[in-house]
Amino acid sequence: MKRRRFRELGIASSGFEAGPANAITDVAGVRVGQITLIKGKGALKPGKGPVRTGITVILPHGGNLYQEKVRAAVHTINGFGKAVGFEQVREVGLIESPIALTNTLNVGLVMDALVQHAIRRNPEIRSFNAVVGETNDGYLNDIQGRHVKAEHVWKAIDMASSGVVEEGAVGAGTGTVCFGWKGGIGTASRVIPGALGSFRLGALVQSNFGRPSDLMIGGARVGRLIKPEVQRDRTREGSVMIVLATDAPLDARQLGRLCVRAGAGLARTGANFSHGSGDFVIAFSTANRIPQAPMARIGKIDMLMDEAPVIDGLFQAVIESVEEAVLNSLTCTETMVGRDGHTAQALPLELLLDILRREGLET
Amino acid sequence: MKRRRFRELGIASSGFEAGPANAITDVAGVRVGQITLIKGKGALKPGKGPVRTGITVILPHGGNLYQEKVRAAVHTINGFGKAVGFEQVREVGLIESPIALTNTLNVGLVMDALVQHAIRRNPEIRSFNAVVGETNDGYLNDIQGRHVKAEHVWKAIDMASSGVVEEGAVGAGTGTVCFGWKGGIGTASRVIPGALGSFRLGALVQSNFGRPSDLMIGGARVGRLIKPEVQRDRTREGSVMIVLATDAPLDARQLGRLCVRAGAGLARTGANFSHGSGDFVIAFSTANRIPQAPMARIGKIDMLMDEAPVIDGLFQAVIESVEEAVLNSLTCTETMVGRDGHTAQALPLELLLDILRREGLET
Amino acid sequence: MKRRRFRELGIASSGFEAGPANAITDVAGVRVGQITLIKGKGALKPGKGPVRTGITVILPHGGNLYQEKVRAAVHTINGFGKAVGFEQVREVGLIESPIALTNTLNVGLVMDALVQHAIRRNPEIRSFNAVVGETNDGYLNDIQGRHVKAEHVWKAIDMASSGVVEEGAVGAGTGTVCFGWKGGIGTASRVIPGALGSFRLGALVQSNFGRPSDLMIGGARVGRLIKPEVQRDRTREGSVMIVLATDAPLDARQLGRLCVRAGAGLARTGANFSHGSGDFVIAFSTANRIPQAPMARIGKIDMLMDEAPVIDGLFQAVIESVEEAVLNSLTCTETMVGRDGHTAQALPLELLLDILRREGLET
Amino acid sequence: MKRRRFRELGIASSGFEAGPANAITDVAGVRVGQITLIKGKGALKPGKGPVRTGITVILPHGGNLYQEKVRAAVHTINGFGKAVGFEQVREVGLIESPIALTNTLNVGLVMDALVQHAIRRNPEIRSFNAVVGETNDGYLNDIQGRHVKAEHVWKAIDMASSGVVEEGAVGAGTGTVCFGWKGGIGTASRVIPGALGSFRLGALVQSNFGRPSDLMIGGARVGRLIKPEVQRDRTREGSVMIVLATDAPLDARQLGRLCVRAGAGLARTGANFSHGSGDFVIAFSTANRIPQAPMARIGKIDMLMDEAPVIDGLFQAVIESVEEAVLNSLTCTETMVGRDGHTAQALPLELLLDILRREGLET
Repeated sequence: MKRRRFRELGIASSGFEAGPANAITDVAGVRVGQITLIKGKGALKPGKGPVRTGITVILPHGGNLYQEKVRAAVHTINGFGKAVGFEQVREVGLIESPIALTNTLNVGLVMDALVQHAIRRNPEIRSFNAVVGETNDGYLNDIQGRHVKAEHVWKAIDMASSGVVEEGAVGAGTGTVCFGWKGGIGTASRVIPGALGSFRLGALVQSNFGRPSDLMIGGARVGRLIKPEVQRDRTREGSVMIVLATDAPLDARQLGRLCVRAGAGLARTGANFSHGSGDFVIAFSTANRIPQAPMARIGKIDMLMDEAPVIDGLFQAVIESVEEAVLNSLTCTETMVGRDGHTAQALPLELLLDILRREGLET
Repeated sequence: MKRRRFRELGIASSGFEAGPANAITDVAGVRVGQITLIKGKGALKPGKGPVRTGITVILPHGGNLYQEKVRAAVHTINGFGKAVGFEQVREVGLIESPIALTNTLNVGLVMDALVQHAIRRNPEIRSFNAVVGETNDGYLNDIQGRHVKAEHVWKAIDMASSGVVEEGAVGAGTGTVCFGWKGGIGTASRVIPGALGSFRLGALVQSNFGRPSDLMIGGARVGRLIKPEVQRDRTREGSVMIVLATDAPLDARQLGRLCVRAGAGLARTGANFSHGSGDFVIAFSTANRIPQAPMARIGKIDMLMDEAPVIDGLFQAVIESVEEAVLNSLTCTETMVGRDGHTAQALPLELLLDILRREGLET
Repeated sequence: MKRRRFRELGIASSGFEAGPANAITDVAGVRVGQITLIKGKGALKPGKGPVRTGITVILPHGGNLYQEKVRAAVHTINGFGKAVGFEQVREVGLIESPIALTNTLNVGLVMDALVQHAIRRNPEIRSFNAVVGETNDGYLNDIQGRHVKAEHVWKAIDMASSGVVEEGAVGAGTGTVCFGWKGGIGTASRVIPGALGSFRLGALVQSNFGRPSDLMIGGARVGRLIKPEVQRDRTREGSVMIVLATDAPLDARQLGRLCVRAGAGLARTGANFSHGSGDFVIAFSTANRIPQAPMARIGKIDMLMDEAPVIDGLFQAVIESVEEAVLNSLTCTETMVGRDGHTAQALPLELLLDILRREGLET
Repeated sequence: MKRRRFRELGIASSGFEAGPANAITDVAGVRVGQITLIKGKGALKPGKGPVRTGITVILPHGGNLYQEKVRAAVHTINGFGKAVGFEQVREVGLIESPIALTNTLNVGLVMDALVQHAIRRNPEIRSFNAVVGETNDGYLNDIQGRHVKAEHVWKAIDMASSGVVEEGAVGAGTGTVCFGWKGGIGTASRVIPGALGSFRLGALVQSNFGRPSDLMIGGARVGRLIKPEVQRDRTREGSVMIVLATDAPLDARQLGRLCVRAGAGLARTGANFSHGSGDFVIAFSTANRIPQAPMARIGKIDMLMDEAPVIDGLFQAVIESVEEAVLNSLTCTETMVGRDGHTAQALPLELLLDILRREGLET
């Protein structure tokens, strides 16, 4: 069966409607760019290859992010990771950088690439808060090689676009493993019902977490019924990065509340938040742009009232989008063979459908 | 069908073995005491009744807790609640008080009752950090009446015992509502396999959260198939208190990591962590007792290494125990009629079994 | 020399101008009410007396605080304390209660008094987040007696007024000790210069911290030159509560940044933030009122831009106000004799002036 | 007058004794290595120079830090900075990397250099948590040039030694400015009195913060009396990194408590923690080494009891060491002329002595 997005399997869905692309790019202005690096095969030669990695960038809008920042929050579910830029986002509640996802040992180089990019666009710059997340693709990839170079980052930014987002073994998801299967990039979105304001919320994940036996899909304990042929305890190197975007006018505190709910979406896929898993969430709102050099001391800001029921709608949208984004990362990807012949099998869709049918989950 | 604990329904379980009582009291030394207050019926007369509330206390050990403290941590999933004592637990990583659960407006009186109790046992005391949690039972109970008095708290402490814990509409769970059904007190435990150290972990919950449509049991979306006859959006007054106990030698930082995983257990029952829900976790370890007046400046402390795989075992135990404790709170309770004839129906076990059988979850 | 406020000693001051009352009440709408409880003398009879305690309440405005909340933040410098209401303030960024200050063992009763008060004013209420802070006055006061009763709290709220705030051994400061001297309530304010927006910021402290040798005034190491006759290590029971008010339109994140700077003000008086000291800060802004039941989903909120230099002005105002409020608590109070003849001497103003003159600090 | 350390000016000191080198290296095993980069003069040519920057590394011990980690904590006073590695330190309470200090835009490259260094020493490594801090030296330095290269980082690590630490305009302090004067690297230490355990505590700072008028030395408001000839508002680019080391057996929670007190030390020099200042603290204890691959599941750990008075001694030692380290950074440095002729004058010691003598602070 051809690889496809989860909802194209015909599984009964529920909850809110997805946006037109069912992707983080359903939030107007958000762009995604990805570079996939696949090179060589066979035995690992540290620093040489084989290469199974990449870069994924998420841009909150198409303008100059340093000059026009967006409100943002970050949240750490389990901090065993190397995310960069979190301290300043916590303090000022703003993101001024593309959000870049890469592999664990490549974070420094990607951070530097974002700094160089910001300098080129803003020649006067002397301070810049790059935001980078990572997961560990060392099971398939020559991770010590740090093969994502500045040029890849810049190209990913340049080619970033709205609309359809490629999923599976692409970009920063090229070499990741999720519940023992091939994971990768996944995305999904929800539209809050009109009575609650018609806001949109999208999630993008880089999935690299979970033990085979824990996988749950639509409530079905799939991981107990099918397991990848080659099993390996991925627990202690797993991780997941989650990026949330919305056009609802939220401030940093409210965006932080959204981040917390992303963990509930993960949990519904079977996540245990294991010791060695760096599980991080980054959320931003496109509703208010905050200039680097504000014209006035006081701004008139649109702000969603927490007491309005819409905030619970957004919470639900986060949970649904994150869960579906993880599933998309699993169902869209092909099998990947990496270094030393290490293989991450694609979750077999026929078997999956059988299981879900048996559990009455098919439409 | 007679009310019973979830696993007595014959549903296939998985994961770790439960402890002998499948209760928080499986952790040696832990005691639970509960007083249930049910009085009157009919129209709400604020300050008079009807009364549907109570008190549940958890004692980390049977000695003098102020003199021999236990290591502890607290965690806030969603802070819309009135929990007391959290600041000091965060700072010193210790609990020196019984942990008391009650209703939202009764926290002050219960806190004062714990202070009085500590004074009586420790006549020299001038500072004492009472720990109190709450959920809102105002749908069934005359919550403004603050009917839990000091005598109830003291009696609950005095009668606290190890062994079987009463579940359902008892103690602080007398008037709570969970996924639209009658909730209450629930508990469960797990034994980490011998290869990982045979540690025990137990959870106790006061369940008062969730929308009817969101209820998930063993992955089955039960809430979409059966709903209570009288429905009401409980979202905005819901809450849940979770208490975790273990005999693994964890420090405050590690106990904090356990707390975070409690949220994953909740999420698997369908929790959305809604805006008005105060969702809090308290965890303690019985392994090291820390004296109020230490004999030596430096103690030799047993401490679990995070790198040892056992920490992931404990995380899994938390998730499983919390999930099952919530289910026990639902399956053990009887229907409760409260003020103004408000009714929280017991989750109908026959219907539930039908659903779970259909999904192949029965043993 | 008659007791007086610090700047009435003629010490050269610097920094921003104080507001008209040099008090937290310079922020329009803010009210303070205090009840002082002094009864009996001689030997401590726990539960009977002598009584040297009280209650201080700060009201962000004169209306119904539950119906019209104010933006707020809390911050814990050292968490060895029993502050109440912090979790919900952190989550929703709002205060809906008078802020009450009392003694350590009286927090439960004061919390309950605030709940009762809220019920009376809002008969429909089922959830209410009382905010209470405390320090330990057990050196002078029969602290086990918990002599602050609900009536005292209610009376303090009823009599709360704008304008001059009584300082020294009054209200919640009746029995406190600071740097070995009699401490108490102190307040101060600053007006941010017009070019930065003419905002006002006020601080009120309940001072009960510090070792005699550490006292610094205007930079002078006063504590090394004069010491109270009766010395006692107050370190391990000390604490301080700080309340900040401003009319600048800040959100919860920004108010949290103000709270952090309060610690710098304390440090300039010699604070060490000792192990047993509960050092907490609560800040609110009167600029935007947030209704319990908002009319619209989205509000137009005034918000100060962090990038505008005014935020640094507010930080400086916090530091200056907190420092001066602590000094006022020391210079305004009379000597207090409490239980068991325990005495907290008033800081002798003549000696203090001599020292400050020698250091060239006099105007 | 020849540049010298603050206490060599003959100012009366007080508090605890300093260690033999009055430096962070007084904590046995701790090593410091620095590379100073000074090249070119005249007009700024971004990417070319002039160069006024460098790297300072602090090694908790001389062994393989990845294989034998140390307990650690981090703390953010004001998060407007680009510190790297904080999330994982918070989660696991360990540092496994040299702590590197550099300039704001150089963090990515330095992070990558630490990763490369760890790979060389540990060929099996697939995950590594580099710890990097920074301040902004862009007033003197061609900061966009990111002139600190991997070779500089590695050389600084290789040459790191115990004993005397060079201070002033060296290493990561080469181009920094503090209270309008030339700042830089400073260090100091304290020995806790024998009755409290004879533990040692050392601080190292990279000082780059503060407005000229705010400088306080020994309580004297020096900044109001002397000001640098060339004044510039440094506030909005300032920052400070503080590293604390101790041989007291503290866990991560306790080390976090030490970090909080570093802010009090800063405040006594006049710090305002301004909006654009990234003020961060990193603390570690050398007392327990935690292996990457522990032999046993449970370790016997030495742990200081919080209740023992020694914790307050450590707090005091932090405050004193941080204050003196900042002063040393000011009194040790020479004047530095940087890009575009920008000049950071050395604080004139004769004038300073005059002021301190007038205030009676000379010995």
